[in-house]
This record gives sequence, C-alpha cells and structure tokens, in this order.
Amino acid sequence: MVACGAGWRLLLVLSAAGFGAVGAPKPPNILLLLMDDMGWGDLGVYGEPSRETPNLDRMAAEGMLFPNFYSANPLCSPSRAALLTGRLPIRNGFYTTNGHARNAYTPQEIVGGIPDGEHLLPELLKGAGYASKIVGKWHLGHRPQFHPLKHGFDEWFGSPNCHFGPYDNRARPNIPVYRDWEMVGRYYEEFPINLRTGEANLTQVYLQEALDFMKRQQVAQRPFFLYWAIDATHAPVYASRPFLGTSRRGRYGDAVREIDDSVGKILSLLRDLRITENTFVFFTSDNGAALISAPKQGGSNGPFLCGKQTTFEGGMREPAIAWWPGRIPAGQVSHQLGSIMDLFTTSLALAGLAPPSDRVIDGLDLLPAMLRGQLTDRPIFYYRGNTLMAVTLGQYKAHFWTWTNSWEEYRQGIDFCPGQNVSGVTTHTQEEHTKLPLIFHLGRDPGERYPLSFASTEYLDALRGVTLVVQQHQKTLVPGQPQLNVCNQAVMNWAPPGCEKLGKCLTPPESIPEKCSWPH
Amino acid sequence: MVACGAGWRLLLVLSAAGFGAVGAPKPPNILLLLMDDMGWGDLGVYGEPSRETPNLDRMAAEGMLFPNFYSANPLCSPSRAALLTGRLPIRNGFYTTNGHARNAYTPQEIVGGIPDGEHLLPELLKGAGYASKIVGKWHLGHRPQFHPLKHGFDEWFGSPNCHFGPYDNRARPNIPVYRDWEMVGRYYEEFPINLRTGEANLTQVYLQEALDFMKRQQVAQRPFFLYWAIDATHAPVYASRPFLGTSRRGRYGDAVREIDDSVGKILSLLRDLRITENTFVFFTSDNGAALISAPKQGGSNGPFLCGKQTTFEGGMREPAIAWWPGRIPAGQVSHQLGSIMDLFTTSLALAGLAPPSDRVIDGLDLLPAMLRGQLTDRPIFYYRGNTLMAVTLGQYKAHFWTWTNSWEEYRQGIDFCPGQNVSGVTTHTQEEHTKLPLIFHLGRDPGERYPLSFASTEYLDALRGVTLVVQQHQKTLVPGQPQLNVCNQAVMNWAPPGCEKLGKCLTPPESIPEKCSWPH
Repeated sequence: MVACGAGWRLLLVLSAAGFGAVGAPKPPNILLLLMDDMGWGDLGVYGEPSRETPNLDRMAAEGMLFPNFYSANPLCSPSRAALLTGRLPIRNGFYTTNGHARNAYTPQEIVGGIPDGEHLLPELLKGAGYASKIVGKWHLGHRPQFHPLKHGFDEWFGSPNCHFGPYDNRARPNIPVYRDWEMVGRYYEEFPINLRTGEANLTQVYLQEALDFMKRQQVAQRPFFLYWAIDATHAPVYASRPFLGTSRRGRYGDAVREIDDSVGKILSLLRDLRITENTFVFFTSDNGAALISAPKQGGSNGPFLCGKQTTFEGGMREPAIAWWPGRIPAGQVSHQLGSIMDLFTTSLALAGLAPPSDRVIDGLDLLPAMLRGQLTDRPIFYYRGNTLMAVTLGQYKAHFWTWTNSWEEYRQGIDFCPGQNVSGVTTHTQEEHTKLPLIFHLGRDPGERYPLSFASTEYLDALRGVTLVVQQHQKTLVPGQPQLNVCNQAVMNWAPPGCEKLGKCLTPPESIPEKCSWPH
Repeated sequence: MVACGAGWRLLLVLSAAGFGAVGAPKPPNILLLLMDDMGWGDLGVYGEPSRETPNLDRMAAEGMLFPNFYSANPLCSPSRAALLTGRLPIRNGFYTTNGHARNAYTPQEIVGGIPDGEHLLPELLKGAGYASKIVGKWHLGHRPQFHPLKHGFDEWFGSPNCHFGPYDNRARPNIPVYRDWEMVGRYYEEFPINLRTGEANLTQVYLQEALDFMKRQQVAQRPFFLYWAIDATHAPVYASRPFLGTSRRGRYGDAVREIDDSVGKILSLLRDLRITENTFVFFTSDNGAALISAPKQGGSNGPFLCGKQTTFEGGMREPAIAWWPGRIPAGQVSHQLGSIMDLFTTSLALAGLAPPSDRVIDGLDLLPAMLRGQLTDRPIFYYRGNTLMAVTLGQYKAHFWTWTNSWEEYRQGIDFCPGQNVSGVTTHTQEEHTKLPLIFHLGRDPGERYPLSFASTEYLDALRGVTLVVQQHQKTLVPGQPQLNVCNQAVMNWAPPGCEKLGKCLTPPESIPEKCSWPH
C-alpha cells in the first residue's frame, strides 16, 4: 500500500555515493529493464554465438557486467515480487505449500497476490519524490487489491498475467491490457498476437510507453522510476513485422533483436535528453531460459545446467548489466554475487532512502560494487516453494535437494534439462541431501557436473561455511502467508475495471476455491 | 620439403587487399597463435563466466571475432597438419584406416608424419622472403625426415609431441625439447613440469622465444611468420608460479590467464615496435576443450555439445580472433564459416602468393571477410579418420554418422560429453545416418539437441543442399597415404639429434612395426 505503516519510516541516508544529501541535486532516475524468460546465454556479451545484441553489448561495454547475478526464484511471479519487495518469496508470500518444493506463480485463477503489508519499491520511492511507472507484466496478482497503482506505481501500461491464449472468453477470459486503473483491451483481441507467424506489435507499444514516460518526467523535472517488464521472450514469443525473420536464431532471436533495438532507443533517448549522468539503468531477467520451449520459443542458458523451473544455475543465473555513464566505470566486470532483490535496496540507496527496518530485507546495496568495485560476501538462496533447495556462498554451491520434475511429467516430454543429464544431480525424484549436500565449485565447474568428493578438505571447508549461513538463515526465517495456494475460476479476469466502457465484461462462474495444483 | 616441386609454382598474385604488388611495401608479418585443447567457451569474449582474459577480449574488441570458426579435426595432430597444409587430414595423410571412424594423432611410437609431398605454409612463404619460426608443439611427426626445419621453418623452439610424462626413459623416453635442429633437454628433466602443483615455466619460455624472434626480424627488416603453438591448456595443464592459484577457475584457468597475459605482451611488443599495421595476428585453437580432463584439467566449450574427440560442435568449433589494426576494422563479428585451414590460404594471400595449384586446397582466403565483411558460402567437413561424420553448410549441420566412444570405454569412465546426453545423437555405438542424416539448425539450436523433423520442408531443403556438396566433395576426393596406421616402439624419441652432446641418448628397443591401436 502507498500509505506508510507505523512500523517503519523512510529515512534519508547519506549513501556511500553521496546521494540524497541536503542541497544535493535531485536523485537519479531509475530504469529497471526486466526481461521475461531470457537466459544468461542470450546476449552477445554473454557469448551467444549469433551475436545479435549490439545495443546491449554496448551497454555492457559502457557499464558493468555481472556474470554472477541471480533471480530470487526459478519462476516469474515470485522473482518479480522479490525484486519489488527486496525480499525472498518465502518472506513476501509468493510461494506455495500445496506440495513439497513446488514452483508456483500467478495464473488467472490465483486468489492471492502481493500482500498489503509488503512495501514495494515504488511506494518507498514516493518518499523521495519519484514518479513511477510499470510498463508490461505485473504478475503480482490481478484481483483489485493487488493492482499496481495501489502499490505505489503512478502509471501502468501492460497486463497482470502472461500473454497466454487465445482463450474463448467462456471457460477462460483473454488477459486484459491495462492503462493505469482500467483495462483498454485484451490480448488476442485489441492487442493481437499471431501465434502462427509470431507477429505482435507489443514490444513497440511498450517501447513508446517507456519513451513517452521518460520525456514527460524530464519536462516535469521529477525523478522517475521506470520498471520496464516486457515479455516478448516468454512463450509464445513474438516480434513486430520489421524484426520477424531477421535473426539467425529463429523467432526467439527475432524477439531478442527487437528488445535489443528497443534498449538502444531507450538509452539513446537518455542521451538526447542529456540525463545519462542522472539515470541509473539496470538490465536483467526474471528467471532462466525456458528450455521446455526450445528451440523455437526458448532461449539459452549458455554453459549452465538446466533452465527455468529448476534451482540449477540455468534456472536462476541471469544476464545483468548496470549502466550509468560517468558514475559506474565503463567496461567493468563485477564478480559480486548479485540478486534481483538487490535492485530494491540499490534503488533505495540511489534515492537516498533506507530500506524498511521492521523486517528482513534480503537485497544488498550494490552501489559499493558498482561505484568502487567492492565485493561483499553474501549468500544466494535457491528456493522451490518453501523448500531451500540450494545455496551459493563464494564460489561454492551446495544442493540440499535436487529435482528437475517428476518421471511422470518427464515421460510426457516435459524436460527442464534437454540434452543434459548429470547422474544423481538432475534427478526426477526429489532427492534429499540435507545431511550431506552435493557441493560444486562454480568457477571450475559452472555446469554443475562434478560434485566435490565428500572426503576432500575442500568439501569439508565449504560445507562448514555453508552450514553456518544456512543455520543463521533458517533460525531467523519467518515465512510469509503463502499467497499461491488457493485457486478459483471465479477470480479470473472476467470483468476488470473499465470493461463496461468497452463492452467487454464477462460473467464469472460460481466461486469455488480450490487448492492450486503445482506439478513441479 | 623446402625445394619447390615441378608440379606447382609460387605465383605472385594481387590479392584483393593489394599486397604483393610491384613496388609495394614488404608483405605483413604473420603471427598465428594456436592454442592446445582450448575450447570455444574459454575466453571472456565468448562468455566464460569468470572473465579472466582481458587481453584476448581487448584483441577481439580491436579486431574481428569469428563465432563460427572450426578446426579441421577433433584431434591435435590432424588439425595442425591441416593448418600448415591448407588441406583436410584425409588429403594430407593425417588419419588412420586401422578402424572405422577413428581419431589418430602422433604419439611417440608413430611411424608416420607429414609427407614430403605436402607443401607447408612456411615453405611457401619463403617465396616471399619470410623468416619462419615455430614455437611450441610441432606434432607432425618426430622422426628425422619430419623435422620442422626440413619443412620450411627456419627456427624451432619446442617439442615434437605432447608434454605427457614423466616417463622412465626405459619403456618410454621423456619428450625432447628442441632448439632448431637439436634437442636441448627433455620435459620433466631440463624442462620441469610439476604434476602435483601444476607449476611449469614453459609458457614464459615460449613467450620469450616469440618476443625475441619478432625483435630480431624487425631489426633484420624481414617479414616474419611466427607459429606460436603453445600447450599449457593441454593436460597436464600448467602455469608458472606467478599465475598459479590466481584464477577463479582453478589450474586450467591459471594456464589461460598466463596465456592471456602473454598474448597481451606479444601485442604490446608489436605496438612498441610500431609494426601493428604491418602484422596480421590470428588466435585460435586446435580442437575443442578436452572434457575428459574436466573440471581440473579441461576447458569449456560454452553452449556446445561434447568436446575433443567428437564431431559435435564442442569438438571442433574454436575461439577465433583476427587482429590487424588499421586494416581489419575494430570490434567486428564475422559469421563467415571459417576453418583453421583458411589460415594457410589467407597467409599466402597476405604474402601475395597463390596457393599450390596442383592439388586441392581446402582453405579459403578470409581477407574478403576480414577486410570487407564479405561472406562466402563454403562447407565445413567433420571427419573422424577417413569417415565423413558430418558437414555444415550455412546454418545447417548434417550428421552422417554419430559416435562419442564405445560403451566399453564409456563404462570405464571415459566420457567425451560429461553431463550431456542427447538421445540418438550422443551415441555409444557408431550409428549410420548416411541415408537420412540428422540435421540441426545451428542458429536456433547451437547445442545440437533438436534434429529437424525428417518430414519438414526445412529438412528436405537443407538435405538437398548438403547432398550436392557432399557428392561433389566425395567425387573428387583422393585420400592421401594414411600416416597414422603404423606404430613402432623403436621410433620413439630415444636418441634425437643433439642427445650425444647432452649425454642423453637412449637405446631404442628392437624395431617391431605394429598396427596402431585407436580405440575411438
């Protein structure tokens, strides 16, 4: 909610970089470019062989590359909730307890969403005078109380759920597209996506929304927070006509090329407006490439194991580029272990704000890493549902549980690790290793193929460090109320606000709350 | 041999770049940096997550990157013979017929070597006044008639075989290290390699040899050809003390870091000598990373399938960077399908020489690609022994045979594709697909995981193109006399020239020629 709770206060802090000081210039604009299902290996600068991302590669050359940057979950909604709250999904409620170690998200029938008690980044940034806009996918719940404009954003253009479809508007409504408080149409209706050709104009629309917003804030002389959460690389992948068929990588590559071109145009506008030195830009993705959709509709996780839905590196290691000419030194690589949750804390630091002090914040302020090359020890936790599957500390990753998906699913052709099979690691039964975790050295073995010998000194030393960190984490962990347990056909997008003006209100079925089914 | 045969002549040609014209300045120096078992994914610029190759990454940023560059064989000796002759191993004799589709190389007991009838690059470059030196591994036969100074090189510092060992000098001699015509010591004796710590000073020695040679040629005002064929990334991998323990990637990474540092020093010297604009430099590797030696002694093939010994992309796709400031535009990527054999033809073109016209040359002149961004259609052939396993044409790769290694070897733990398993593709029996090849689209599917459907139009179109090219190739193919069929303990490095001066001559055993055993 926008209103500040009693338990915490917005604090002006003098961040290490000196922003927010009395009399200082207005805090920098913040531009978070969040991709959907884009993999670590999808950019030229990360080694994609077709090398079709000149604008993003240039962004990296002018900024800082993070090769060890992680999402907070191998699935979209929890990862996005973590970004905006700075907290692990297990804390902010974006998980399920319906089964052991199950991934969950926010399909149309989900009843839950972002709890009111969570403080979202745009809410907090209001305290420093920011105007905030989300362009694209919200994914933090679509019922009225979860609307992004009730959680700090001033503007929204985009949709609450994935662009799956088309649906028949009887068993299941097509997903609405909102402008601010009201829907302005639905996917496959007013906002067409041609599943056969892959043509859709959406990235161009999202680009214009971003450019327009930035221009308006510049005129208004307000610092802005723009959360550009586009989804062309999520199946069904799409591109607009000028990009279709232009990639060496097929349709997925067409989508990447259009995104790369759009990022180029966004950075160009910042140059044209002469605000590059007052605008912090960060590019990353919500989870690993969806290898289940490969090769035509899925991306690449480079040398890493498996993809989306898994807690192997391919599921959670992300492309990440920070760009802020004149502040972040050009052409640098940071080996800081980074998390999507750090974007919360870092953005607050940029605004001269302290994070909420009444709750655990998992995000780290990356400004010391970005501005001065400092490295901070911190763990990366890999959860599936409420199960801590793995943790990375330094270069060591310990798996407490291994699972890809069930044999039943796998036999049906659902494969999160196509072409990959590491014996005893990419298991199709949930294997517990909590007593004796599998530990990998991610520097020597980024592909998680060679567990350290249990008898080695290296293993024992790594285990000691990991055990301490995990004990500390679990001792203080207070799980949030799980939001992704209950589903109900009646809560789908039958009659979003504004539907009456468009004559597009649909009649919901009888309300029957059910336990959501999360198969993996 | 150095003397020119009657059947061909050195021809001065006006290459597209205009070198070699009458009255033109001396032709450019040629510097080929050939790595040993380094994989496509081992450089930062190719996406290696630890990003420890700043000098090579800078070389790429100042030059041209080839993401689609191939060795001529998944094993060392044939690939090197192909580089220096511009011809496929099946033509120049660097293959075996002892078994079906077997990789072979030049261990100490090999009887064969580079045939006299082959014209090697340094022989031909003499026609344009070049001074030539090989630093490092020769690998084209170690019997007297195969000595590199009998095949065009003016100088040699290095060894004829791999740095395996230590041996007992009774059942098997340690490998000699030569300076020019004579041995100056042996590995593990005068040239120590500490297998426990990984310490060896060899890269530093090879670096000094390179720097000294270039300085001398600059003083002499002779164009030079330097073939820097170092081997620190071949198991047992090694690095000198200042680099040991410095990599995030373990010992293999230490070796890479030392090589990167050395390449930086070599390019620095070119700058200091002010000859960058008259020196063509190319960096590549002899075959894919040896995943059998991973994770401690093997590199990375990035997103590609399998490694050394196989005809999947991981076995033969190589890192490749061309650098020639002022001539090759900076920061470019070329999607030209390139081959290590192209370095032969390209080097001749640089020298203003035509390739021999009395034989088939497989190498392509890459100058049009490098200087003007032109792309030329050409196939890449993937052989194992005398069996054509696969071919790539455009973005389509067709496999006529698939094999990794035998079940017997695999069960013993010899795995060329650790952690990878593509059903029906990474087979442990030799599977024939000549009637209906498996075809992959390498742009959408660089990891060779999803064969095209046999029934698709795309498959049929690709097959048509591939079939024509293969028919043409096979119709005109005249295999050379296989050099890698016969082994004999008596031909090992018992008493290389110069051994008597060092008191290091050993007594060979009885000469018993045998069929070499090539298990995979």
